[in-house]
Amino acid sequence: MKLYTYFRSSAAYRVRIALHLKGLSYEAVPVHLLRDGGEQLQDAYRTINPSALVPALQDERGTVTQSMAILEYLEETHPDVPLLPADPLGRARVRELCQIIACDIHPLNNLRVLRYLVHTLGVDEQAKTEWYRHWVRDGLAAFEAHLARDPGTADFCHGETPTLADCALVPQIFNARRVDSRLDHVPNVMRVFDACMALPAFAETRPEACPDAA
Amino acid sequence: MKLYTYFRSSAAYRVRIALHLKGLSYEAVPVHLLRDGGEQLQDAYRTINPSALVPALQDERGTVTQSMAILEYLEETHPDVPLLPADPLGRARVRELCQIIACDIHPLNNLRVLRYLVHTLGVDEQAKTEWYRHWVRDGLAAFEAHLARDPGTADFCHGETPTLADCALVPQIFNARRVDSRLDHVPNVMRVFDACMALPAFAETRPEACPDAA
Repeated sequence: MKLYTYFRSSAAYRVRIALHLKGLSYEAVPVHLLRDGGEQLQDAYRTINPSALVPALQDERGTVTQSMAILEYLEETHPDVPLLPADPLGRARVRELCQIIACDIHPLNNLRVLRYLVHTLGVDEQAKTEWYRHWVRDGLAAFEAHLARDPGTADFCHGETPTLADCALVPQIFNARRVDSRLDHVPNVMRVFDACMALPAFAETRPEACPDAA
Repeated sequence: MKLYTYFRSSAAYRVRIALHLKGLSYEAVPVHLLRDGGEQLQDAYRTINPSALVPALQDERGTVTQSMAILEYLEETHPDVPLLPADPLGRARVRELCQIIACDIHPLNNLRVLRYLVHTLGVDEQAKTEWYRHWVRDGLAAFEAHLARDPGTADFCHGETPTLADCALVPQIFNARRVDSRLDHVPNVMRVFDACMALPAFAETRPEACPDAA
Protein backbone atom coordinates (compact mmCIF):
# COMPACT_ATOMS: atom_id res chain seq x y z
CA MET A 1 0.00 0.00 0.00
CA LYS A 2 1.27 3.50 -0.89
CA LEU A 3 0.19 6.73 0.77
CA TYR A 4 0.90 9.99 -1.03
CA THR A 5 1.38 12.34 1.86
CA TYR A 6 2.80 15.67 3.01
CA PHE A 7 3.93 15.97 6.61
CA ARG A 8 1.94 19.14 7.27
CA SER A 9 -1.23 18.13 5.44
CA SER A 10 -3.87 17.57 8.09
CA ALA A 11 -5.92 15.48 5.64
CA ALA A 12 -2.93 13.15 5.11
CA TYR A 13 -2.30 13.04 8.87
CA ARG A 14 -5.88 11.71 9.37
CA VAL A 15 -5.02 8.74 7.17
CA ARG A 16 -1.60 8.17 8.76
CA ILE A 17 -3.30 7.84 12.15
CA ALA A 18 -5.90 5.35 10.87
CA LEU A 19 -3.26 3.22 9.15
CA HIS A 20 -1.24 3.12 12.38
CA LEU A 21 -4.29 2.32 14.53
CA LYS A 22 -5.13 -0.56 12.22
CA GLY A 23 -1.54 -1.79 12.25
CA LEU A 24 -1.19 -1.52 8.47
CA SER A 25 2.22 -1.00 6.94
CA TYR A 26 2.58 1.24 3.92
CA GLU A 27 5.08 3.10 1.83
CA ALA A 28 4.89 6.85 2.40
CA VAL A 29 5.44 8.76 -0.84
CA PRO A 30 6.08 12.42 -0.02
CA VAL A 31 4.44 15.09 -2.19
CA HIS A 32 5.95 18.44 -1.25
CA LEU A 33 3.22 21.07 -1.47
CA LEU A 34 5.61 24.02 -1.58
CA ARG A 35 8.66 22.78 -3.49
CA ASP A 36 8.98 23.49 -7.22
CA GLY A 37 5.72 25.41 -7.23
CA GLY A 38 3.96 22.49 -5.57
CA GLU A 39 4.56 18.87 -6.53
CA GLN A 40 0.80 18.20 -6.17
CA LEU A 41 0.18 20.49 -9.17
CA GLN A 42 2.53 18.67 -11.51
CA ASP A 43 1.32 16.23 -14.16
CA ALA A 44 2.98 13.25 -12.47
CA TYR A 45 0.77 13.68 -9.42
CA ARG A 46 -2.35 14.76 -11.32
CA THR A 47 -2.27 11.34 -12.99
CA ILE A 48 -2.72 9.89 -9.51
CA ASN A 49 -5.19 12.52 -8.27
CA PRO A 50 -6.74 14.92 -10.81
CA SER A 51 -7.83 17.10 -7.87
CA ALA A 52 -4.13 17.87 -7.20
CA LEU A 53 -4.57 17.41 -3.46
CA VAL A 54 -3.04 15.00 -0.94
CA PRO A 55 -3.59 12.37 0.34
CA ALA A 56 -4.06 9.54 -2.15
CA LEU A 57 -3.93 5.86 -1.28
CA GLN A 58 -2.95 3.10 -3.70
CA ASP A 59 -3.33 -0.61 -3.13
CA GLU A 60 -3.78 -3.71 -5.29
CA ARG A 61 -7.37 -2.67 -6.09
CA GLY A 62 -6.66 0.85 -7.29
CA THR A 63 -6.36 4.47 -6.17
CA VAL A 64 -8.55 6.30 -3.66
CA THR A 65 -8.39 10.04 -3.02
CA GLN A 66 -10.14 12.32 -0.51
CA SER A 67 -9.17 11.56 3.08
CA MET A 68 -12.68 10.73 4.31
CA ALA A 69 -13.24 8.32 1.42
CA ILE A 70 -9.87 6.71 2.19
CA LEU A 71 -10.77 6.32 5.88
CA GLU A 72 -14.09 4.63 5.00
CA TYR A 73 -12.27 2.43 2.48
CA LEU A 74 -9.73 1.31 5.08
CA GLU A 75 -12.57 0.63 7.49
CA GLU A 76 -14.30 -1.60 4.94
CA THR A 77 -11.21 -3.40 3.68
CA HIS A 78 -9.43 -3.74 7.05
CA PRO A 79 -12.23 -3.93 9.63
CA ASP A 80 -10.11 -5.62 12.29
CA VAL A 81 -9.44 -2.61 14.47
CA PRO A 82 -12.79 -0.88 13.95
CA LEU A 83 -12.76 2.91 13.84
CA LEU A 84 -16.53 3.22 13.53
CA PRO A 85 -18.90 1.96 16.24
CA ALA A 86 -21.35 -0.84 15.49
CA ASP A 87 -24.69 0.95 15.94
CA PRO A 88 -26.12 3.14 13.16
CA LEU A 89 -26.61 6.25 15.30
CA GLY A 90 -23.10 5.96 16.75
CA ARG A 91 -21.64 5.59 13.27
CA ALA A 92 -23.62 8.63 12.15
CA ARG A 93 -22.33 10.63 15.09
CA VAL A 94 -18.70 9.77 14.35
CA ARG A 95 -19.16 10.72 10.69
CA GLU A 96 -20.91 13.93 11.71
CA LEU A 97 -17.94 14.90 13.89
CA CYS A 98 -15.54 14.06 11.05
CA GLN A 99 -17.46 16.26 8.64
CA ILE A 100 -17.43 19.23 11.02
CA ILE A 101 -13.65 19.16 10.63
CA ALA A 102 -13.49 18.05 6.99
CA CYS A 103 -16.21 20.39 5.64
CA ASP A 104 -16.70 23.26 8.07
CA ILE A 105 -13.10 24.06 9.08
CA HIS A 106 -10.36 22.55 6.98
CA PRO A 107 -11.43 23.56 3.42
CA LEU A 108 -11.44 27.23 4.39
CA ASN A 109 -7.84 27.14 5.53
CA ASN A 110 -6.38 25.11 2.72
CA LEU A 111 -3.22 26.37 1.02
CA ARG A 112 -4.96 27.18 -2.27
CA VAL A 113 -7.64 29.19 -0.44
CA LEU A 114 -5.11 31.20 1.57
CA ARG A 115 -3.25 31.90 -1.68
CA TYR A 116 -6.44 33.18 -3.34
CA LEU A 117 -7.05 35.50 -0.39
CA VAL A 118 -3.58 36.99 -0.69
CA HIS A 119 -2.89 36.93 -4.43
CA THR A 120 -6.35 37.58 -5.87
CA LEU A 121 -8.18 39.47 -3.13
CA GLY A 122 -5.11 41.34 -1.86
CA VAL A 123 -5.73 40.39 1.76
CA ASP A 124 -2.80 41.26 4.05
CA GLU A 125 -0.92 38.81 6.28
CA GLN A 126 -2.78 39.81 9.45
CA ALA A 127 -6.25 39.53 7.91
CA LYS A 128 -5.28 36.16 6.42
CA THR A 129 -4.25 34.85 9.84
CA GLU A 130 -7.45 36.23 11.38
CA TRP A 131 -9.49 34.44 8.68
CA TYR A 132 -7.70 31.19 9.53
CA ARG A 133 -8.25 31.62 13.27
CA HIS A 134 -11.89 32.60 12.77
CA TRP A 135 -12.92 29.35 11.08
CA VAL A 136 -10.88 27.23 13.48
CA ARG A 137 -12.36 28.99 16.51
CA ASP A 138 -15.97 28.78 15.30
CA GLY A 139 -15.65 25.26 13.93
CA LEU A 140 -14.04 23.89 17.08
CA ALA A 141 -16.70 25.64 19.18
CA ALA A 142 -19.34 23.72 17.23
CA PHE A 143 -17.36 20.50 17.65
CA GLU A 144 -17.11 21.21 21.40
CA ALA A 145 -20.89 21.74 21.62
CA HIS A 146 -21.45 18.39 19.92
CA LEU A 147 -19.04 16.70 22.37
CA ALA A 148 -20.46 18.45 25.44
CA ARG A 149 -24.08 17.53 24.81
CA ASP A 150 -23.71 13.87 23.92
CA PRO A 151 -23.47 11.03 26.44
CA GLY A 152 -21.44 9.09 23.83
CA THR A 153 -18.45 11.37 24.49
CA ALA A 154 -15.97 9.62 26.77
CA ASP A 155 -12.16 9.35 26.86
CA PHE A 156 -12.30 9.86 23.10
CA CYS A 157 -14.78 11.68 20.87
CA HIS A 158 -17.05 8.66 20.89
CA GLY A 159 -16.46 5.99 23.49
CA GLU A 160 -13.39 4.54 25.15
CA THR A 161 -11.36 3.85 22.02
CA PRO A 162 -10.35 6.09 19.09
CA THR A 163 -12.67 6.41 16.11
CA LEU A 164 -12.47 8.23 12.79
CA ALA A 165 -13.64 11.34 14.66
CA ASP A 166 -10.39 11.39 16.62
CA CYS A 167 -8.41 10.82 13.40
CA ALA A 168 -10.07 13.97 12.03
CA LEU A 169 -9.87 16.09 15.17
CA VAL A 170 -6.22 15.72 16.18
CA PRO A 171 -4.65 17.07 12.94
CA GLN A 172 -6.95 20.09 13.14
CA ILE A 173 -5.53 20.96 16.56
CA PHE A 174 -2.03 20.91 15.08
CA ASN A 175 -3.22 23.40 12.46
CA ALA A 176 -4.86 25.52 15.14
CA ARG A 177 -1.65 25.70 17.16
CA ARG A 178 0.39 26.66 14.11
CA VAL A 179 -1.58 29.89 13.80
CA ASP A 180 -1.99 30.42 17.57
CA SER A 181 -5.72 29.95 17.33
CA ARG A 182 -7.74 30.15 20.53
CA LEU A 183 -8.25 26.76 22.21
CA ASP A 184 -9.28 27.68 25.78
CA HIS A 185 -12.97 27.65 24.77
CA VAL A 186 -12.99 23.93 23.89
CA PRO A 187 -12.13 21.93 27.05
CA ASN A 188 -13.66 18.64 25.88
CA VAL A 189 -11.83 18.90 22.58
CA MET A 190 -8.50 19.43 24.32
CA ARG A 191 -9.11 16.63 26.82
CA VAL A 192 -9.73 14.25 23.93
CA PHE A 193 -6.70 15.63 22.08
CA ASP A 194 -4.46 14.88 25.07
CA ALA A 195 -5.86 11.35 25.36
CA CYS A 196 -5.11 10.77 21.68
CA MET A 197 -1.59 12.16 21.82
CA ALA A 198 -0.73 9.68 24.57
CA LEU A 199 -1.15 6.92 21.97
CA PRO A 200 1.66 6.00 19.53
CA ALA A 201 -0.75 6.02 16.55
CA PHE A 202 -1.29 9.76 16.96
CA ALA A 203 2.15 10.74 18.26
CA GLU A 204 4.31 8.78 15.83
CA THR A 205 2.47 10.03 12.76
CA ARG A 206 2.40 13.72 13.73
CA PRO A 207 3.83 16.21 11.23
CA GLU A 208 7.26 16.67 12.85
CA ALA A 209 7.74 12.92 13.14
CA CYS A 210 7.33 12.35 9.39
CA PRO A 211 10.43 11.52 7.35
CA ASP A 212 9.56 14.30 4.87
CA ALA A 213 9.52 16.92 7.64
CA ALA A 214 13.31 17.02 7.62
CA MET B 1 -38.77 11.20 10.14
CA LYS B 2 -38.19 14.97 10.13
CA LEU B 3 -35.81 16.81 7.84
CA TYR B 4 -34.77 20.33 8.78
CA THR B 5 -34.26 21.90 5.40
CA TYR B 6 -34.01 25.12 3.42
CA PHE B 7 -35.07 25.07 -0.21
CA ARG B 8 -31.87 26.68 -1.48
CA SER B 9 -29.44 24.74 0.72
CA SER B 10 -27.54 22.40 -1.56
CA ALA B 11 -26.58 20.23 1.43
CA ALA B 12 -30.27 19.78 2.31
CA TYR B 13 -31.10 19.09 -1.34
CA ARG B 14 -28.62 16.16 -1.32
CA VAL B 15 -30.64 14.56 1.47
CA ARG B 16 -34.02 15.31 -0.14
CA ILE B 17 -32.87 13.44 -3.26
CA ALA B 18 -31.70 10.40 -1.29
CA LEU B 19 -34.93 10.24 0.72
CA HIS B 20 -36.93 10.34 -2.50
CA LEU B 21 -34.75 7.73 -4.23
CA LYS B 22 -35.24 5.43 -1.26
CA GLY B 23 -38.98 6.06 -1.22
CA LEU B 24 -38.92 7.36 2.37
CA SER B 25 -41.60 9.76 3.51
CA TYR B 26 -40.69 12.54 5.92
CA GLU B 27 -41.89 15.80 7.36
CA ALA B 28 -39.96 18.76 5.94
CA VAL B 29 -39.35 21.41 8.62
CA PRO B 30 -38.23 24.61 6.92
CA VAL B 31 -35.40 26.61 8.49
CA HIS B 32 -35.22 29.96 6.72
CA LEU B 33 -31.54 30.95 6.48
CA LEU B 34 -32.25 34.62 5.74
CA ARG B 35 -35.42 35.46 7.71
CA ASP B 36 -35.13 37.10 11.15
CA GLY B 37 -31.34 37.19 10.90
CA GLY B 38 -31.28 33.47 10.08
CA GLU B 39 -33.46 30.90 11.83
CA GLN B 40 -30.52 28.49 11.87
CA LEU B 41 -28.69 30.83 14.26
CA GLN B 42 -31.49 30.93 16.83
CA ASP B 43 -31.42 28.90 20.05
CA ALA B 44 -34.39 26.77 19.00
CA TYR B 45 -32.42 25.38 16.07
CA ARG B 46 -29.05 25.27 17.85
CA THR B 47 -30.63 22.78 20.27
CA ILE B 48 -31.13 20.53 17.24
CA ASN B 49 -27.79 21.31 15.59
CA PRO B 50 -25.14 23.19 17.58
CA SER B 51 -23.34 23.84 14.28
CA ALA B 52 -26.27 26.09 13.23
CA LEU B 53 -26.31 24.62 9.72
CA VAL B 54 -28.94 22.72 7.75
CA PRO B 55 -29.78 19.94 7.16
CA ALA B 56 -30.56 17.87 10.26
CA LEU B 57 -32.47 14.60 10.28
CA GLN B 58 -34.49 13.28 13.21
CA ASP B 59 -35.94 9.81 13.54
CA GLU B 60 -36.88 7.48 16.37
CA ARG B 61 -33.18 6.84 17.11
CA GLY B 62 -32.07 10.46 17.42
CA THR B 63 -30.69 13.42 15.48
CA VAL B 64 -28.05 13.35 12.76
CA THR B 65 -26.46 16.46 11.26
CA GLN B 66 -23.99 16.98 8.38
CA SER B 67 -25.42 15.95 5.03
CA MET B 68 -22.80 13.31 4.22
CA ALA B 69 -23.27 11.66 7.63
CA ILE B 70 -27.04 11.72 7.06
CA LEU B 71 -26.65 10.09 3.63
CA GLU B 72 -24.48 7.29 5.06
CA TYR B 73 -26.97 6.86 7.92
CA LEU B 74 -29.89 6.52 5.50
CA GLU B 75 -27.85 4.04 3.48
CA GLU B 76 -27.23 1.91 6.58
CA THR B 77 -30.72 2.13 8.05
CA HIS B 78 -32.65 1.89 4.75
CA PRO B 79 -30.42 -0.19 2.45
CA ASP B 80 -33.24 -1.24 0.14
CA VAL B 81 -32.54 1.13 -2.72
CA PRO B 82 -28.74 1.14 -2.42
CA LEU B 83 -26.97 4.40 -3.21
CA LEU B 84 -23.50 2.95 -2.75
CA PRO B 85 -22.17 0.13 -4.94
CA ALA B 86 -21.29 -3.24 -3.42
CA ASP B 87 -17.54 -3.40 -4.06
CA PRO B 88 -15.08 -1.54 -1.78
CA LEU B 89 -13.31 0.36 -4.57
CA GLY B 90 -16.63 1.43 -6.10
CA ARG B 91 -17.88 2.61 -2.73
CA ALA B 92 -14.64 4.53 -2.22
CA ARG B 93 -15.00 6.14 -5.62
CA VAL B 94 -18.56 7.30 -4.93
CA ARG B 95 -17.48 8.75 -1.56
CA GLU B 96 -14.48 10.42 -3.20
CA LEU B 97 -16.77 12.13 -5.72
CA CYS B 98 -19.10 13.22 -2.91
CA GLN B 99 -16.24 14.74 -0.97
CA ILE B 100 -15.01 16.72 -3.98
CA ILE B 101 -18.33 18.55 -3.81
CA ALA B 102 -18.78 18.52 -0.03
CA CYS B 103 -15.21 19.52 0.91
CA ASP B 104 -13.57 21.18 -2.10
CA ILE B 105 -16.42 23.33 -3.47
CA HIS B 106 -19.42 23.82 -1.24
CA PRO B 107 -17.78 25.00 2.03
CA LEU B 108 -16.10 27.88 0.23
CA ASN B 109 -19.39 29.25 -1.07
CA ASN B 110 -21.45 28.87 2.04
CA LEU B 111 -23.53 31.84 3.21
CA ARG B 112 -21.41 32.47 6.32
CA VAL B 113 -18.22 32.49 4.23
CA LEU B 114 -19.61 34.92 1.65
CA ARG B 115 -20.71 37.16 4.53
CA TYR B 116 -17.21 37.11 6.03
CA LEU B 117 -15.74 38.10 2.65
CA VAL B 118 -18.08 41.08 2.38
CA HIS B 119 -18.49 42.23 5.98
CA THR B 120 -15.06 41.48 7.44
CA LEU B 121 -12.72 41.58 4.45
CA GLY B 122 -14.61 44.33 2.58
CA VAL B 123 -14.73 42.37 -0.66
CA ASP B 124 -17.04 43.97 -3.26
CA GLU B 125 -19.97 42.26 -4.97
CA GLN B 126 -18.07 41.49 -8.17
CA ALA B 127 -15.06 39.96 -6.40
CA LYS B 128 -17.41 37.92 -4.21
CA THR B 129 -19.14 36.48 -7.28
CA GLU B 130 -15.77 35.80 -8.91
CA TRP B 131 -14.66 33.93 -5.75
CA TYR B 132 -17.82 31.82 -5.92
CA ARG B 133 -17.36 31.05 -9.61
CA HIS B 134 -13.66 30.27 -9.15
CA TRP B 135 -14.20 27.42 -6.67
CA VAL B 136 -17.14 26.04 -8.64
CA ARG B 137 -15.19 26.12 -11.91
CA ASP B 138 -12.04 24.51 -10.46
CA GLY B 139 -13.91 22.01 -8.31
CA LEU B 140 -16.14 20.86 -11.14
CA ALA B 141 -13.11 20.61 -13.45
CA ALA B 142 -11.57 18.17 -10.94
CA PHE B 143 -14.87 16.28 -10.71
CA GLU B 144 -14.98 16.13 -14.54
CA ALA B 145 -11.42 14.74 -14.65
CA HIS B 146 -12.40 12.03 -12.18
CA LEU B 147 -15.46 11.15 -14.32
CA ALA B 148 -13.57 11.26 -17.61
CA ARG B 149 -10.78 8.92 -16.58
CA ASP B 150 -12.79 6.18 -14.87
CA PRO B 151 -14.49 3.30 -16.69
CA GLY B 152 -17.04 3.22 -13.84
CA THR B 153 -18.62 6.42 -15.17
CA ALA B 154 -21.77 5.56 -17.12
CA ASP B 155 -25.24 7.13 -17.35
CA PHE B 156 -24.67 8.36 -13.83
CA CYS B 157 -21.49 9.26 -11.93
CA HIS B 158 -20.91 5.61 -11.12
CA GLY B 159 -22.86 3.02 -13.06
CA GLU B 160 -26.35 2.86 -14.52
CA THR B 161 -28.27 3.96 -11.42
CA PRO B 162 -27.92 6.99 -9.17
CA THR B 163 -25.55 6.89 -6.21
CA LEU B 164 -24.67 9.29 -3.43
CA ALA B 165 -22.27 10.97 -5.89
CA ASP B 166 -25.24 12.08 -8.00
CA CYS B 167 -27.04 13.29 -4.86
CA ALA B 168 -24.03 15.49 -4.16
CA LEU B 169 -23.38 16.66 -7.72
CA VAL B 170 -26.83 17.84 -8.83
CA PRO B 171 -27.38 20.47 -6.10
CA GLN B 172 -23.93 21.90 -6.86
CA ILE B 173 -24.99 22.52 -10.47
CA PHE B 174 -28.01 24.47 -9.22
CA ASN B 175 -25.61 26.64 -7.20
CA ALA B 176 -23.33 27.04 -10.21
CA ARG B 177 -26.19 28.25 -12.39
CA ARG B 178 -27.36 30.73 -9.78
CA VAL B 179 -24.07 32.62 -10.13
CA ASP B 180 -23.69 32.00 -13.89
CA SER B 181 -20.61 29.88 -13.32
CA ARG B 182 -18.94 28.35 -16.34
CA LEU B 183 -20.20 24.85 -17.16
CA ASP B 184 -19.08 24.30 -20.76
CA HIS B 185 -15.77 22.77 -19.57
CA VAL B 186 -17.47 19.80 -17.84
CA PRO B 187 -19.34 17.77 -20.48
CA ASN B 188 -19.50 14.52 -18.49
CA VAL B 189 -20.78 16.39 -15.46
CA MET B 190 -23.57 18.00 -17.47
CA ARG B 191 -24.50 14.76 -19.21
CA VAL B 192 -24.91 13.11 -15.81
CA PHE B 193 -26.80 16.14 -14.51
CA ASP B 194 -29.31 15.87 -17.38
CA ALA B 195 -29.77 12.14 -16.75
CA CYS B 196 -30.47 12.86 -13.09
CA MET B 197 -32.91 15.68 -13.76
CA ALA B 198 -35.00 13.33 -15.90
CA LEU B 199 -35.78 11.39 -12.70
CA PRO B 200 -38.53 12.50 -10.29
CA ALA B 201 -36.25 12.07 -7.26
CA PHE B 202 -34.03 14.90 -8.51
CA ALA B 203 -36.67 17.06 -10.20
CA GLU B 204 -39.35 16.99 -7.51
CA THR B 205 -36.95 17.90 -4.71
CA ARG B 206 -35.21 20.78 -6.50
CA PRO B 207 -35.14 24.15 -4.74
CA GLU B 208 -38.03 25.80 -6.64
CA ALA B 209 -40.25 22.75 -6.07
CA CYS B 210 -39.92 22.94 -2.26
CA PRO B 211 -42.93 24.18 -0.28
CA ASP B 212 -40.71 26.72 1.53
CA ALA B 213 -39.60 28.29 -1.76
CA ALA B 214 -42.90 30.17 -2.00
